[in-house]
Amino acid sequence: MNRSAVRAAVHVAAVFAIYLSVAMLVPALIDLYYGNPDWKAFAFSALFVGGFALAVALATQGKPPAVTTRFGFLLVNLLWVTMAVAGAVPLMLSSIQLSPTDAFFEAVSGITTTGGTVINGLDQAPPGLLLWRSLLCFMGGLGVIVLGLFLLPFLNIGGVSYFKIESSDIEDRPFERFQTFTISLIGIYGALAVACTIGYAAGGMDTFNAINHAMSTVATGGFSTHDTSFLRYADKPIILWTGSIFMFIGSLPFSIMILFAVRGRLDALRDPQIRVFAGYCIVFAVAVAIYLRVKLDMPFGDAITHSTFNFMSIISTAGFASDDYTLWGPFAVACIFVATFLGGCSGSTTGGIKAYRFLILFELLANGLRRLIYPHTVLPVRYGDRTVPAEMQHMVALFIASFFVIWAIGTILLGATGLDFVTATTGALTALTNVGPGLGPIIGPVGNFSSLPDTAKWVLSFLMLLGRLEILAVLVMFTPAFWAR
Amino acid sequence: MNRSAVRAAVHVAAVFAIYLSVAMLVPALIDLYYGNPDWKAFAFSALFVGGFALAVALATQGKPPAVTTRFGFLLVNLLWVTMAVAGAVPLMLSSIQLSPTDAFFEAVSGITTTGGTVINGLDQAPPGLLLWRSLLCFMGGLGVIVLGLFLLPFLNIGGVSYFKIESSDIEDRPFERFQTFTISLIGIYGALAVACTIGYAAGGMDTFNAINHAMSTVATGGFSTHDTSFLRYADKPIILWTGSIFMFIGSLPFSIMILFAVRGRLDALRDPQIRVFAGYCIVFAVAVAIYLRVKLDMPFGDAITHSTFNFMSIISTAGFASDDYTLWGPFAVACIFVATFLGGCSGSTTGGIKAYRFLILFELLANGLRRLIYPHTVLPVRYGDRTVPAEMQHMVALFIASFFVIWAIGTILLGATGLDFVTATTGALTALTNVGPGLGPIIGPVGNFSSLPDTAKWVLSFLMLLGRLEILAVLVMFTPAFWAR
Repeated sequence: MNRSAVRAAVHVAAVFAIYLSVAMLVPALIDLYYGNPDWKAFAFSALFVGGFALAVALATQGKPPAVTTRFGFLLVNLLWVTMAVAGAVPLMLSSIQLSPTDAFFEAVSGITTTGGTVINGLDQAPPGLLLWRSLLCFMGGLGVIVLGLFLLPFLNIGGVSYFKIESSDIEDRPFERFQTFTISLIGIYGALAVACTIGYAAGGMDTFNAINHAMSTVATGGFSTHDTSFLRYADKPIILWTGSIFMFIGSLPFSIMILFAVRGRLDALRDPQIRVFAGYCIVFAVAVAIYLRVKLDMPFGDAITHSTFNFMSIISTAGFASDDYTLWGPFAVACIFVATFLGGCSGSTTGGIKAYRFLILFELLANGLRRLIYPHTVLPVRYGDRTVPAEMQHMVALFIASFFVIWAIGTILLGATGLDFVTATTGALTALTNVGPGLGPIIGPVGNFSSLPDTAKWVLSFLMLLGRLEILAVLVMFTPAFWAR
Repeated sequence: MNRSAVRAAVHVAAVFAIYLSVAMLVPALIDLYYGNPDWKAFAFSALFVGGFALAVALATQGKPPAVTTRFGFLLVNLLWVTMAVAGAVPLMLSSIQLSPTDAFFEAVSGITTTGGTVINGLDQAPPGLLLWRSLLCFMGGLGVIVLGLFLLPFLNIGGVSYFKIESSDIEDRPFERFQTFTISLIGIYGALAVACTIGYAAGGMDTFNAINHAMSTVATGGFSTHDTSFLRYADKPIILWTGSIFMFIGSLPFSIMILFAVRGRLDALRDPQIRVFAGYCIVFAVAVAIYLRVKLDMPFGDAITHSTFNFMSIISTAGFASDDYTLWGPFAVACIFVATFLGGCSGSTTGGIKAYRFLILFELLANGLRRLIYPHTVLPVRYGDRTVPAEMQHMVALFIASFFVIWAIGTILLGATGLDFVTATTGALTALTNVGPGLGPIIGPVGNFSSLPDTAKWVLSFLMLLGRLEILAVLVMFTPAFWAR
């Protein structure tokens, strides 16, 4: 890593922060519209962050550096930390006056689309603040799609990218392609949020709540404008099904929709990870619905509605809840726990281990078992009709192994801050997979993270960032090779 | 798999069962000596199992089959199931009259050196029965060393074998070598048990209890002759340190001791997995001892004694307890949970993921991160001064990934039987790693498995066998390729 690369990365992050400061004017305007004095907090934050970012951007001007993978990793890490820090500023200055720790946790939870909150009294919070939280989710979701579709695959981690593996007819104009795809991505993402808002409003949600929930649904984020998440809509099936459908869509690879929009092609629908993802969603939702019907004597209509909503919420790593599912009995709780690991597709807004990794893992396992019997057969690892390169097999195995190591370390660190076993272990897990709620009375679906010690909040914030950047993209920063000249 | 291979495997298992029936005469004699009428149960079991096994052995005689890897896998699975079924017979017929489910669970727990029990009232149980349980642990421990040193490495899973990788001066007489090594292994294993007995007796344990505990200590099994495990020796540091030392020795690769005995060489001590294993034992024992000193105000002498004993017990996958460590506070409990994954060295009596896999995993991770920065460098994965073959790297990654998948499935199945979250998740884990106790009030260090539903006991029995046979050796039996002609 040389100095000019660091300078250039800081410059890009500073320019990005200027855009973020402009975004802060949206909640300021909303608070003004509602006549809430909190608009000053956002206006001041916009000025402060914008001014500071402008100064840094000017101070770090210079000619662009050579684009290396190291520059890519540095930039990605820097952008997410910048989003978190800039996002935290208005949360500290707003009338609810979060401490720096709480504000950072809340901002990280938003931009990583985790959705765990430290705020009590959301229902009485100023509208600008609620909108800012939703915007953090929404921007974070868009960021992670760009990351998963365009950046990480070129850095050799995280994902099957149609834009990398695809045919070469577009390879010769990479920038133009990137621009076309990004614009259509933003269009699609925005259109989904609008459609979701309409669905929620049709189910009886008022407009402001519908807009906020739609942003955090499409981003599979999980921030709600209510302390009790979707529990107040528990008897409104239209709202719950709208949520389920848009969380499902948010978990699909956005490349499908982009390729459809840009080229009118739907072949990407054959992507095998979609079948795996849809498969485990259906299995969990139906199995637990039957369990609720049989054990808790819930009418099957309600059972399938709530089971689907909450499993879509966990598997898509959104983290909403329409019921305190920890009271659904041991089988349901065990399923929720396991579902917390899963995640959606590559190139979506979801976190977790993700369907394509499971697919490759099972291929590897089947091949490995076959080779135990016929040691000299060499079988390709297939992903649909393509062969998975050795490097990618390697990265999938490493991701999964390091995932569990980081989870174990996180559990011990959270235990050291005094959290009980269930809170520590599921807290570390839900942060690392960007889901949101854990198990147990404190951080369960009807709880929140407000009462946790500050140290625990910092550990969780770091875990959320690690999970969001697919672990390896952060770990690479801690190697000596990264900083070598 | 052809019919003659199946026949031959059944034949070997039947011959093995004849030896097991002879072993049943030992508890019969002990009960006779103590004048306990339970001797009849063991004598009858010996006759019944021996007679049945003899009949099967005669019926399956024939010329030996070609030794293929499939034959090896079939034989290994069959031997362990035979041990479990034969071991369960006297437990059903004895005066404590275990149900078939309970007897099978107890026998599996013994031969897999797990050490979880379903028996309440051990302190009043007949001596023959207690000795039989200890013998199951002891024989299971010996079996797993043979498995780890000689069988699994030749089947390409589970371990760094000095006898496979080592210099070729012994390669030309494999059978003679196998014989020499097995005899010296049995000698060393027996000598360790005798030394451990002396240590326990010196600390104040009576001879019968000392012999029983020594057998299950050296096997890192965990069966105790008391309902409360080592809690009654909590104030006897000589006993606890004896236990710690022999559990540590039992976790080392027995190849070290064999090579020392046969050739007077100690170079195997440089095996890097030993450093990793000793490293994590010391870190956990010392960290939690300091925590106990500071938080629970325990005198440091007691703190280090109990912390070392219980962490050696968990990490070596024995599963004894000298205290209810679930009351030691959140940090200690989180450490215990993580320690349950670890295990000892390859070629020892321990279960779990094991030190050499962590070593290879970290090498893979460091290499992987380096390759993210320099994509075209190819670096060898080192294990000490050797290079790890690609096939072995592959198997390590597959083992770890399938470990977590099996754990997740086990948790859901146990949840479905009605077990609460902590019992289900730590129960599945402790069975799969062959540790013994889990967390929570039911299966924690002062509890046992007696009150669990029968279905849960079958799930746990299967998980113990899976863990003991390094998962992949069992999974391979469920592939179509295995049974193809």
